[in-house]
Amino acid sequence: MALSKKPVTGMKDILPEEMRIRDYVIGVIKETYGKFGFTSIETPCVENIANLTSKQGGDNEKLIFKILKRGEKLNVAAASTEEEVVDGGLRYDLTVPLVRFYSNNAANLPTPFKALQIGNVWRADRPQRGRYRQFMQCDIDIFGEASNLAEIELILATTTTISRLGFRNFQIRLNDRRILKAMAAWAGFAESDFDEVFITLDKMDKIGGDGVLAELLEKGFGDEAQCGKYLGLFDEIRKSEDGIACLREKLEGFLDDDVMTSFQEIVDSVKATKADTFELVFDPTLVRGMSYYTGPIFEIAMPEFGGSCGGGGRYDKMVGKFTGNDVPACGFSIGFERIVMLLMESGFQIPETPEKIAYLVEKGVGGERLCQVIAKAQEERAAGKQILVARMNKNKKFQKDQLTAEGYSDFVEIYRDPLKN
Amino acid sequence: MALSKKPVTGMKDILPEEMRIRDYVIGVIKETYGKFGFTSIETPCVENIANLTSKQGGDNEKLIFKILKRGEKLNVAAASTEEEVVDGGLRYDLTVPLVRFYSNNAANLPTPFKALQIGNVWRADRPQRGRYRQFMQCDIDIFGEASNLAEIELILATTTTISRLGFRNFQIRLNDRRILKAMAAWAGFAESDFDEVFITLDKMDKIGGDGVLAELLEKGFGDEAQCGKYLGLFDEIRKSEDGIACLREKLEGFLDDDVMTSFQEIVDSVKATKADTFELVFDPTLVRGMSYYTGPIFEIAMPEFGGSCGGGGRYDKMVGKFTGNDVPACGFSIGFERIVMLLMESGFQIPETPEKIAYLVEKGVGGERLCQVIAKAQEERAAGKQILVARMNKNKKFQKDQLTAEGYSDFVEIYRDPLKN
Repeated sequence: MALSKKPVTGMKDILPEEMRIRDYVIGVIKETYGKFGFTSIETPCVENIANLTSKQGGDNEKLIFKILKRGEKLNVAAASTEEEVVDGGLRYDLTVPLVRFYSNNAANLPTPFKALQIGNVWRADRPQRGRYRQFMQCDIDIFGEASNLAEIELILATTTTISRLGFRNFQIRLNDRRILKAMAAWAGFAESDFDEVFITLDKMDKIGGDGVLAELLEKGFGDEAQCGKYLGLFDEIRKSEDGIACLREKLEGFLDDDVMTSFQEIVDSVKATKADTFELVFDPTLVRGMSYYTGPIFEIAMPEFGGSCGGGGRYDKMVGKFTGNDVPACGFSIGFERIVMLLMESGFQIPETPEKIAYLVEKGVGGERLCQVIAKAQEERAAGKQILVARMNKNKKFQKDQLTAEGYSDFVEIYRDPLKN
Repeated sequence: MALSKKPVTGMKDILPEEMRIRDYVIGVIKETYGKFGFTSIETPCVENIANLTSKQGGDNEKLIFKILKRGEKLNVAAASTEEEVVDGGLRYDLTVPLVRFYSNNAANLPTPFKALQIGNVWRADRPQRGRYRQFMQCDIDIFGEASNLAEIELILATTTTISRLGFRNFQIRLNDRRILKAMAAWAGFAESDFDEVFITLDKMDKIGGDGVLAELLEKGFGDEAQCGKYLGLFDEIRKSEDGIACLREKLEGFLDDDVMTSFQEIVDSVKATKADTFELVFDPTLVRGMSYYTGPIFEIAMPEFGGSCGGGGRYDKMVGKFTGNDVPACGFSIGFERIVMLLMESGFQIPETPEKIAYLVEKGVGGERLCQVIAKAQEERAAGKQILVARMNKNKKFQKDQLTAEGYSDFVEIYRDPLKN
């Protein structure tokens, strides 16, 4: 059978040019998050299929790469369903595996536990330009911190990292699932309809207030008066000078006042750091897709990029699914692949690389002379330089042009005839 | 369905303590190999099943985690064999995917092309202590370098990296597939028996010369005279002052003299660097399992560890399997997991970590005071310190003990009552 040179459908090879930027971004991420006390952890890329199909992953559960059973446990001929032939799957995100990890290892972890994960995930999405079926995610999460210190630290760690990568004028949009619910309750929607109402609300960016209104009516969630009241509240917040204060007054009786106090504290604490690379804004239309969120939610919006460049929130009820006991949890994921793409497109240059020198050795140089060349190269490397030792190609000019493009700034040519040197 | 807290069978969660060492090792590897002009690349973890079962992977092909087809392509009920339901698999090594990568991207890569890969591979091996079904490999490979410069650079890059990780007194064992074959031909074995003869020879470490002799006779490869002649040659080399010179004389007519000259050059060039952390030794009993090797082969032996800690060799015929045109190729893989294990067992401490300070904030500290604390933490981080901001636990002493164990050397306690500070 002929071997295929192409990667599998929807996945890609990563060439040196992109890898240099990826490695640089990973370096900045690890160093910056480290300064906030986040420690790296890793889980296997494969998870038990039951964990991946436990309704924690929403629509991603439809996109799992499933792994065949092996040995005696597998009987394809006798099987009639998928379930009978698979026992694992590739993870579609880092959150479900992290919660399993925490549940499994909590006794050996500090409280609070601040985790950093950088790893690949897989989703069998329809292949499309710029979106791949294997991609890297980068998440930070805090377990065991019930107070808003978790949200504050996650937002500061994320914004500090993104700023260090050179991004400016980005936004952190902030909302709270409890505010979302209180607003819907205040307008008169039934609690059983909330999730569907929020799916429509989430389209505000694309279809505007009128579009949301039309879709809510079409779906039959309440009458024109109720839907109008709901959308009017968003207008009112937008027009008010202090949206949080405005809402606090409006939602009295529908929302615990502590929620708004804590929410205001997140905003005030982040602003107190006087960071000037981003803006933190309250956005009552922010929904975030996953139904597991229980409190504050947030998203990164970049002027260079239409969609979201990351997001997260509080999910206090997920550990309980594994252990029976809930543990406060809150996380923030940055869109690693989008950030790399934006840097590549901007012609980003990595700062501070070592001096790069290429030794080009003519064919036939051997013995004693080769020994001298090799020993010299080792000395220079020990002194911090990057030394490439390569045979001189027949087309030396082309070889040097290629190396110059790779950043080699100096060439040493070694010939058989010592007089040529 | 109850969710499982355990990782899938044979794979493991990696806790912060081990991750710190893994990240440190990866950092040293990337920096050191970078000094030799190796550039990072990555391939997807999933490969087409046809590529993984093309006989390049030896016994590893029996251990593949296979991936189920999706959507309309899958019909479990109608299928009677594994082949009908799978289209991909998790890679079992980094070599087959690298050769596919090179074949796919050669036009956009320099010549020679020096690749560094650090990535996970998967093998459904019988689970056993210290061996996992997902583990990290770290390979360097050079494509397009026909001369021994490839072997020399690979050996120097690898030994420099391992030395920088603190290892001393290790050995690089060196042999050549062509020497192996010439010795067997010289003794009188049929070429069709070579692979089987080498499998027996490979056991020399464990069963000794007598054991090898007995097994060769038992398997019926030649008579006592022939097998005795073969094993006698190994004795002779061991006893001679210069094994390479001794062999060169003995194998005249069976081996191209250029092979020995080039082999001697590898040894001389590496010795010329006067590295004192390791010894390069010619070992005519070194076999290396994979049948794809075509020239020099090498292996790392560590005194701290019984088995091999890495190895590699030249494989000039594999690119041709993908493209029809052979390209010189040579690689060296280090045993990443074994190195991490040896460092963990030795109580290795990572050098040069930043000052780590924990701010413990009493429950209820909020508003203005919280803003001040957060702003101060951000300032300290910008100045290079690692600052953890956490709520003070009820058992403050236990919390501080835990943090001390994590390396926090200083504590700042922030109370609601400002007089307590």
